[in-house]
Formats: sequence, structure tokens, C-alpha cells
Amino acid sequence: MGILIKGVFTPDRKKATIYIEENIIQSINDEMYKDDFVIDGNRKLILPAFYNTHTHLSMSLFRGIVEDMWLKDWLEKVVWPMEKHINEEYVYWGAMLGGLELIRSGIAAIADMYFFMDKVSEALELLGLRGVLGTTIFEFPSPEAETPEDAFKIVENFAKKYKNRELIKPSIAPHSIYSCNIEILQQAKEIADRYGLLVQIHLSETKWEVYEVQKRYGKRPVELLESIGFLDKNVLAAHAVWLTKAEIRTLAKYDVKVSHNPVSNLKLASGGVMPYPEMKEYGVLVTLGTDGVASNNNFDMFEEMKVFAISQKNHRWDPTIAKAKEVFKVATENGAKALGFKAGRVEEGYLADLVLIDLNSPHLKPFYDPITLAVYSMRAGDVDGLIVNGKPLMLNREILVVNEDKLMEKAERKAFELYEKVMGVVK
Amino acid sequence: MGILIKGVFTPDRKKATIYIEENIIQSINDEMYKDDFVIDGNRKLILPAFYNTHTHLSMSLFRGIVEDMWLKDWLEKVVWPMEKHINEEYVYWGAMLGGLELIRSGIAAIADMYFFMDKVSEALELLGLRGVLGTTIFEFPSPEAETPEDAFKIVENFAKKYKNRELIKPSIAPHSIYSCNIEILQQAKEIADRYGLLVQIHLSETKWEVYEVQKRYGKRPVELLESIGFLDKNVLAAHAVWLTKAEIRTLAKYDVKVSHNPVSNLKLASGGVMPYPEMKEYGVLVTLGTDGVASNNNFDMFEEMKVFAISQKNHRWDPTIAKAKEVFKVATENGAKALGFKAGRVEEGYLADLVLIDLNSPHLKPFYDPITLAVYSMRAGDVDGLIVNGKPLMLNREILVVNEDKLMEKAERKAFELYEKVMGVVK
Repeated sequence: MGILIKGVFTPDRKKATIYIEENIIQSINDEMYKDDFVIDGNRKLILPAFYNTHTHLSMSLFRGIVEDMWLKDWLEKVVWPMEKHINEEYVYWGAMLGGLELIRSGIAAIADMYFFMDKVSEALELLGLRGVLGTTIFEFPSPEAETPEDAFKIVENFAKKYKNRELIKPSIAPHSIYSCNIEILQQAKEIADRYGLLVQIHLSETKWEVYEVQKRYGKRPVELLESIGFLDKNVLAAHAVWLTKAEIRTLAKYDVKVSHNPVSNLKLASGGVMPYPEMKEYGVLVTLGTDGVASNNNFDMFEEMKVFAISQKNHRWDPTIAKAKEVFKVATENGAKALGFKAGRVEEGYLADLVLIDLNSPHLKPFYDPITLAVYSMRAGDVDGLIVNGKPLMLNREILVVNEDKLMEKAERKAFELYEKVMGVVK
Repeated sequence: MGILIKGVFTPDRKKATIYIEENIIQSINDEMYKDDFVIDGNRKLILPAFYNTHTHLSMSLFRGIVEDMWLKDWLEKVVWPMEKHINEEYVYWGAMLGGLELIRSGIAAIADMYFFMDKVSEALELLGLRGVLGTTIFEFPSPEAETPEDAFKIVENFAKKYKNRELIKPSIAPHSIYSCNIEILQQAKEIADRYGLLVQIHLSETKWEVYEVQKRYGKRPVELLESIGFLDKNVLAAHAVWLTKAEIRTLAKYDVKVSHNPVSNLKLASGGVMPYPEMKEYGVLVTLGTDGVASNNNFDMFEEMKVFAISQKNHRWDPTIAKAKEVFKVATENGAKALGFKAGRVEEGYLADLVLIDLNSPHLKPFYDPITLAVYSMRAGDVDGLIVNGKPLMLNREILVVNEDKLMEKAERKAFELYEKVMGVVK
């Protein structure tokens, strides 16, 4: 019982037949299959699916409520008042809406930071998507936990319950240095090590954060994290914009992974541009993330790759920086590696997390190098199919695993309901 | 005989019925129509179509040949060797491929600079798209003309022949200050005034250009153009990145229009970011363009709006700059105004250049403000229909005016043929 994708273009522009069994790419162009389920690859391109390494999936309910504001206003006027009403139900419907978009965007896996992760798991497992799910920890009350201690208990229970799931990996997410004191950061790291969890943290996203940490501790953020024993190979730092070269060397030394979120950084006007050339030079594993759609405002990893490439080029006045092939690798293979999956390549022995692209569109002609096209010309709207863990979730633009229309409509009603609790009637 | 679009969401999120007759939006929510042709607007949003004010449409044949190079290498190794072989036939097929993409991207009109404009007109008129078409003038031979005098003759003939077309407006395009001497610039302006043409020119795209002009003339580009009497309300300057405040004031004084091309500027690593806040402050009419797909690499005006907004915000460390509503106006109404059309608004009396958006997708939920969604969440893949000059060119994602598949295939064959003359066999 397997899946055969016939006559599809591979990332190196060869025609191939790809055989998937269980959840693995078993063979490419080996004629010995039992072709139980055949997908016609004609006029299609197969790519590794994206690994989106920084999201707040359930915040999909907050998309586009207000825009073009200072971060402080946006948090105080919208996000925090909305999050006062956040509960398991809203988290589920936000994850469902976000999850449907992930499928349509060719994203196989996310590293997510939010609350009520049981509910996020429920939505992702129903949809067939992977999630590395980190309950967010604050030094103050969260929508889910009155105290950090309560939050740690939630993390531990979640870690035990979801220990052996195929699609879900428990994680822990101390929110940031400015919102977690040292004790909390250390305790989070200790729990992560005990349960084998990935630690997700927002790091040096804004210059405000750097000043704040320096004021409080007399150290820059990475220096502080090093001094308290936090830095390690199981740490995934999101944003990582405002860093010195010394800090980047420190991240490299401890094999900390970085999630670069260019669209969110530019949109929120963090200022500066993530120091990618130095990260590359010193050997930091850089991955790509969209952040939540409340600050993006979509999960389009094609757009994210392009903005990554062109913002790096312009910032350094050098068009040879962030070449298409390496940008694509950052968005796929590097992300998979950071999250602990053998995926991100269309190769035998890799996980069958694959995207099918409809090549039959004028903006994808002429068809020379598929990766160049993927980074500079494609968008999520070109995604025709998605296979995750060997299972087709969408084919011919039709989502196979759930009734998309019904769920989308319900999720939107829930978004409106939440909106009206804070912002007034939807006009 | 008219077109009735029933029950569609307007840009201000009202449900409306829109009646089009001839090429004009005749009425909105007036129940007195003779509904000859009905378009179901259910779950759709209507927006004004885009006016893309800087393209090299026929260079669509050059999409993605090589990337991530210095501009000089890219020109010397690819563009110029390819352009040695450019002829009427390639220009036609490039324009056809590009034109199909324009339709799928919701673009009603372009301001184009290239060669063999008879052929570009032919393609655009067949497709039903508007073009303000400027034959490019150099001080050296072009693919079309041995001398500037020959090029001027071509412009004059084109201006006479296309004087009264509905969709095509002749224009003249002295390429840039660094590739046209003063006499040529003045002669181009003189011909433009005589025939009532828009003058398109590349202006201050790179810092190299500014240095070069200063070296040659002892003046900055805008100062030079002012001193030779070139600046005027019929001038459309593309790029306009490297300007002083004094130069921006000068552009405003003469009512020169600007085409901002953020994706191309970032991708080619021009460095810096177009001084939009100052243009706005001093009253320059800013419009939006994609540039050619050889340096973009698509005609996605949604992407262009988003990159415009987020690059401005980040560059000035201020998220309140380039708000969604003004960015959208720049891409639609401002563009139409610069090109001399009363379009860019869904309002009675405006030209019926309209886009239909398929709202039935998770990345467009929840549906609050349509313009916020358009700028930050949509992409060209959401375009479901396009009406230009009152004529539906695409409905339900199907191009109605030509056989898209057949033309796309032919155009790709032509692209490969041209590629092989310079680059070797397509692998």
C-alpha cells in the first residue's frame, strides 16, 4: 500500500516517478512499485514541504483587526484585551483556521508558541499536520495559567501525554527575557532537558528589548542567556535581529537554532535587518518562520522566502547574498533539522512531506530552474497538493481530510464572536 | 446591453450590485438595470484593478534565467546578449506571456518601456488590456533602431498610428540620463509635448547613476533634468530612490509623477529605500510598478503593495508609515491618474477596470477590512476575475479572451528558443 506520483518535475527539473510507502520517500525512478494510489504529476512540480519555525497559529482569529500601529498600541488596544477572552474553544478554532491555511500554503510543520496546546494538537492531528507545540510561559498570569508554576505543570502534563505522537512534539516556550525572570528561564530549560523538549523563545526582536535587558541585567540578551546556562542545541530563538557579532558567535558555539521572520520584522518596523551573512559565516542554523498572521498577515512561505532574500540583498547592497538555493534550504531542510525531522529534501529515505505545485500558469513560464521560480515567482496560491507524513492532505487544490468550507465558516464565526467582545459589532 | 455584478462585497465591505455599461461603472445599488450579462458576486470582493506604472512586458521571456548576480554581470552576461536577438516576434510573445500574467494578477493597465511597440500593442489589444507604451531611446543603437533619430521616427509613427485607440496610449521613453545625452533628452521631451505623450524615464535608481551624472554634468540627476527643461507634468520617473529632499521638492514643483518599484529595488540591491514620506509630504504623486519580471520576478501587485508598506515601515522604524489604505490608493487610483485614466475606484462614473477576488480561502478569514486584507494577506492567486474597459477578460479564473494554454505554451517555446541562442540548451 503506497502512493505513486507519476511524471512529476523534481527540484532539479528532472521528470520522475516517486514512490511513498508508510511515511517515507521509498524510491525515485525505481520501477518496482505496487502502485496502490496514483497521483498524476503531469505539469506539476514536487518540492519538499515547508517547515515554518515560528508561529502563533491560534492568533489566526486576530488577522487584520487593526493595522499600521505601534506595537505597544496594538498589544494594549487589541491583542491583550482579546487574549483576556481566549479559551480552549477559541484556541481550537484559531488553530483550525490557521491549519487550513497551512495546508493551502504547502507547510508541513510548525513550531508554535501559544496556550491550550491540547487544542492546537487536536486541530493539527485532525488536519494531519506536524506541530512542535510550546506552551508559553510568563512571569505574570497567562490566559491558561495563573502562575508560572501552573504553566510548568501544564507543560509537563502535555509532554507526558504527547510523548509518542507521530505528528506532535511537545515543546516549552518561555516567552522572552523581558517577560520571564531568570528563575523561570532556568526552570524552563531544566524541564526541557528532562523531557527532551525544544525550547522556543523570542530573542532580540526589538532594540527596546536589548535596552531593557541591559538595563535590568547589565548584559545583552545572548550574554545573559549564556551566563545563566540557557543556551543549548535544543533552543530555537525566534527573530534574533538585534545581535552583535560576539552574540552570533555565542549562538553558534552552543548550536542554538534561529527562526528568521523577515515579514513580521519589517511590518512591525523593528528596524534593522537580521544579520544573516554573519549567522551563515559563524555557522548558526538559520530557519524561516512567518510569525503569527496577526503580524504578517498570512502563512505564505513563498512570500517569506522572497522577502528574506530581497531584504538581505538590499540591506547589504549586495545581490549575491541570500541566493535562491540557500533561501529555499533555509525554509525547508534547515527548518526540519531544527525541529528534529529528517525532511526537507525530495530524496529516498526522507519523510514524505511534499508539496505539489501547479506549473500551468503564466507567471511560472518559462520553466528553467524550479528553485529560482519557487523563491522569486511563486506564491502560496500555486500550491496544488500537500502530502504530510506520507498522507495526502490536499490534491488538485481540494482539501481531503476535512470539510474546509464548513470549518472555515465556523472559525470565522468564532473570530467575529471574539472580536465583538472587545471591539464592538463587526461592520 | 450591460454587465450586472450581483451581491458582491465592495472595498468598504458593503454588499452591492454594480451595473456596467459601455466601459463605465454606471450605477451602484440602483435597481433599474437591464441585466444582459450577470456575474454572481457571491463570496467575492470587487476592487479597482491595478495600474502597474513601470514594466518591460516583453522581458517576461527572460524570467529566472539567472539570478542573484550583480546588475552589471546580469546585463552583460544575460540581458544584452539576449537582446541582440530580440525582434518583433520575440517582443510579441514576451508581451503575450506577460499579458496573460497581468490578467491573472488583476492588472488593467501598464506603463511599459521596450521596443517594437506595435507588437506589444497587438498583444495587449488582443488580450483587452491597457498600455501606455514607450519606445525606449538610447544614445547608442537599440534592438529596434540604429540611431536615436531612427528611434524618434518610430515614436512619431507610433504616436500617429495609435492616436485614437481605446486601450493603447503612445508614450516615449528616453531610457535614462546616463544612456541619453542632453540633446536626446530634450528632443524626446519636445516630441512628447508635440504629440501629447507621457515621457517615461529611469531616474536615480542606483547610487552609481547619481555619481555618474554628477561626474558628467556636475549636477544631481533631478537638478540636471530641471536645468534642461525636461521636468513637467507629463513625465513619469521610474524608481526615484536616490534623491535629496531638494530634488523631491523639485519633482513636486513640476508635478512629475513617480513609479515606485520596491521589489525590484530590493532584489537588485540598489541600497536605500525610496523616500516615500518626503514624496508624500511635498506632494509628489507616487504610483506603484513591478518593473520587468526579469528583476522581480512576477507581476504580483499584491506582493508589491506589501513590500512597499513593510519596507517603508522598517526603514523609518515607524509602523504607521505607508498605511494599507494609502498603499492601495497608490497601486490603483494614483497609477490611473498618472497614466491619464479616470479609474482606480469602485464608483459611479469611473472606468470599469475591476478585479474580482475569491474570498473563499482560509488566508482571507476573518473578513474585516477588505483593503487591509488586500495589502497584507492577498496575493495574485486570489484574483478570480478581471474586467477592463467594461469587458470581462477573466471570470471564475478562466481567461475568456484567448486560449491561454495554447498561447502560454507557444510563448514558452519562444523563450526557450531565444535562451538557446545565448545560453545553450535548456537543461
